[in-house]
Amino acid sequence: MTGSIEVFTRFGESLVDASGKLILNYWRQGPEVYTKADDSPVTIADRRAEATIREMIASEYPDHGIAGEEFGHEKMDAEYIWSIDPIDGTKAFISGSPLFGTLIALLREGTPILGIIDIPATGERWIGGDKLPATLNGRSLQTRTGLNLSDATSGSTSPKMFTGGDMERLQRLHDKIKLPIYGGDCYLYGMLALGSIDLVIEAQLSDYDYLAPAALIKAAGGIATGWQGEALGIGTTDKIIAAGDKKLHAQVIDILNDG
Amino acid sequence: MTGSIEVFTRFGESLVDASGKLILNYWRQGPEVYTKADDSPVTIADRRAEATIREMIASEYPDHGIAGEEFGHEKMDAEYIWSIDPIDGTKAFISGSPLFGTLIALLREGTPILGIIDIPATGERWIGGDKLPATLNGRSLQTRTGLNLSDATSGSTSPKMFTGGDMERLQRLHDKIKLPIYGGDCYLYGMLALGSIDLVIEAQLSDYDYLAPAALIKAAGGIATGWQGEALGIGTTDKIIAAGDKKLHAQVIDILNDG
Repeated sequence: MTGSIEVFTRFGESLVDASGKLILNYWRQGPEVYTKADDSPVTIADRRAEATIREMIASEYPDHGIAGEEFGHEKMDAEYIWSIDPIDGTKAFISGSPLFGTLIALLREGTPILGIIDIPATGERWIGGDKLPATLNGRSLQTRTGLNLSDATSGSTSPKMFTGGDMERLQRLHDKIKLPIYGGDCYLYGMLALGSIDLVIEAQLSDYDYLAPAALIKAAGGIATGWQGEALGIGTTDKIIAAGDKKLHAQVIDILNDG
Repeated sequence: MTGSIEVFTRFGESLVDASGKLILNYWRQGPEVYTKADDSPVTIADRRAEATIREMIASEYPDHGIAGEEFGHEKMDAEYIWSIDPIDGTKAFISGSPLFGTLIALLREGTPILGIIDIPATGERWIGGDKLPATLNGRSLQTRTGLNLSDATSGSTSPKMFTGGDMERLQRLHDKIKLPIYGGDCYLYGMLALGSIDLVIEAQLSDYDYLAPAALIKAAGGIATGWQGEALGIGTTDKIIAAGDKKLHAQVIDILNDG
């Protein structure tokens, strides 16, 4: 099964159209919260959204693989694989914050070629990919470039991500930049694509957390890799450096790995 | 100068109508960021928004006092005093996040009788006060009540607020609840009024950060005080416990002050 990036993008948008509508029915309605084996929370909204997305993919592209947060992996030897995080920012969702999102990436031969970050509660949708300009609700975006590290803003979802020496590594970076911020989940990557922040540094992520952002950030002119600079694919790492400026990215790799 | 709460509310809405429009002109436009004496960031948007609000108050209610974040105190012996935080969540604003807000409170004889939390980027406006139901964009709200502490969600803007033993006190609370969350600034109080979280615990605040939330939370059925349970007014404390349920509030005071 082949297809053009435009066709895949339209299909990807139909996925988040459907999931977003479904998820908003549960937002601020006190959804029942379950605790998963890894102690993270999940709601019926997460599960129903991913089930809907998986059914739509299986119906339209029965040969494609699917790697989702809630219901696991299927056909991982397929040329095309869809990566799905139905609700990134589940704690935000449960708490009534609008800053949660649905992440969809399409990988071809293991490389993310399309990324969608959809924020249903604010009506914001970031899209970017190979030969596909990065956009927010159709408006073209570019990351901020040409700045010094000392002028940079860096975001991380939570200090609790950084264990076993990683917090000291992050602190070394924070000592060299202008503004460190916490919180945000997938929204951080949208702000990075917008050029309103310059770095996202994370740890203890899963691939469905970073594959859509990776395709978006690349399309916006930036770069996202693992902490050693390695390319991102299914299960390749759990630590991310995403930067709007490639020179900053190289500097951050040095700082995080120094010692 | 006397007036009804309805008249003051309409006037308060006209203030945030004006400030919100002005602030959004700077959002995601790379506003110049200045550093204040206390090392916190401020932008031209903060300053212009507060100047606009102060001019409108001086013109409509020349006898009223004004206590604002950026331009200080005037007529603090007046019967009515307006408390203004033009942009609460300046770091969020600078970073391109939508979760910053304008806070306006009206105090009579030192007590907050009206609170407005306006989030221009999402179009959300919380209002509540004495004899004025708590609303979000006109829809009535009530805090969540009748739950146990072990089922509660508690928010704090940043772990960096808690110094000199306060972090240990907060940790004692976090050990007893279901879900601690960080981040949010004034949006946390909106979520509390909505009943989607149950507690907001903060430290190192200024009065313009908590007076509007205090009036809103009271109108929504909850309570906001200092950490010793003291009533909130201009300069009364820098530490806040806000709770949707009054029994939870009493429990939290005990936990935070135990030892």
